[in-house]
Amino acid sequence: MVQNIIVTVDVVLLTLRDERLHVAVQRRDKEPYNGQLALPGGYIHDNEDFDAEGSARRMLKDKTGIAAPYLEQLETFANSARDPRGWSVSVAYYALVAPESLSVGQLDLLPVDGLPVLAFDHNKLVAAAVQRVRNKAAYSSLACYLLPERFTLTELQHTYEKILGSRLDKSSFRRKISSLDFLEMVKDEVQAGRQRPAQFWKLKQGSLTIFDKLL
Amino acid sequence: MVQNIIVTVDVVLLTLRDERLHVAVQRRDKEPYNGQLALPGGYIHDNEDFDAEGSARRMLKDKTGIAAPYLEQLETFANSARDPRGWSVSVAYYALVAPESLSVGQLDLLPVDGLPVLAFDHNKLVAAAVQRVRNKAAYSSLACYLLPERFTLTELQHTYEKILGSRLDKSSFRRKISSLDFLEMVKDEVQAGRQRPAQFWKLKQGSLTIFDKLL
Repeated sequence: MVQNIIVTVDVVLLTLRDERLHVAVQRRDKEPYNGQLALPGGYIHDNEDFDAEGSARRMLKDKTGIAAPYLEQLETFANSARDPRGWSVSVAYYALVAPESLSVGQLDLLPVDGLPVLAFDHNKLVAAAVQRVRNKAAYSSLACYLLPERFTLTELQHTYEKILGSRLDKSSFRRKISSLDFLEMVKDEVQAGRQRPAQFWKLKQGSLTIFDKLL
Repeated sequence: MVQNIIVTVDVVLLTLRDERLHVAVQRRDKEPYNGQLALPGGYIHDNEDFDAEGSARRMLKDKTGIAAPYLEQLETFANSARDPRGWSVSVAYYALVAPESLSVGQLDLLPVDGLPVLAFDHNKLVAAAVQRVRNKAAYSSLACYLLPERFTLTELQHTYEKILGSRLDKSSFRRKISSLDFLEMVKDEVQAGRQRPAQFWKLKQGSLTIFDKLL
């Protein structure tokens, strides 16, 4: 069986800025779509990458310097029409980072709502990632990965509200978060405030916590 | 960029039989893994298939005769170790069918719990599909696709119970299903029963209904 198929990985890197989800894009400097904005991505290197996730981490590291974001496979886009060079596969990933850890460099950040036309089918990839994050945030600890390592519960609630696009009741939010037991207090460290200092918290473990009920 | 990557599609075809989820497998008649059980799948034909989903439908049709099951992309398994022939990509799909519509032919049905060792990493693909179906059934109309076109509410409740592995309260299940409004009555057709006849129902539309709360 001789196949003539291009195999790539693309990453939808999302962060919160100015209260809104933003996606990282860069301007292409070669054909196809020379000069157009595109997601960071490229060919899988079968002589170098162990797996597709390794390709995604290599590309992120090379293009943003970020070594260990929250990274998850999104969906695979595979057809004969998405790339003028021929039949092509993009194994798409999405990554979440705190805005503070993103020194943009070669990349631009654009709000996910009202994006310009991107190269290839990359608008579809962004839409799929945003939908995934909005759905999954409602029943998991996903939103924490858009915050710095240490955060207050008020910051966490605001992050959930920005992603979900709706206000949450403070006391039921705190009851829910406390019952789920995925955060630990950062000892001896509080955020100075106008009224009283706020406690810092961090994720207990690296892996995602799935809630049994929606927020 | 010269890549040496095999691009395949595999399908985890699930059905309910004897109260349990079963998966369709077939014995391979060529290397690698000659003689071992594997999922239906094969190379993407870049000269014939428009997209990966089209490849999955072609393989299902060729190997099971099923033309229009519920079919959804599952996950992509892509690394240098899963196939002895070299770096390989499997875009995995899962499909749900009613047991009645499956004339097995070249395929065997095995219970998903306690599977033998399958070829390649196909045990991982089955595990991922079973987890997806169990999770997604709790907040969607997914379970309906394991039933024939027309079914009673008792049959639907039993199907949810078999997938979720837990008993559901009859009156709250019926209240929930009725409030979601994704079923329509099949007029003038009832199931004869020992006590009183049971109404048949069918899905209102082809697309999946997502619930706002867990069952």
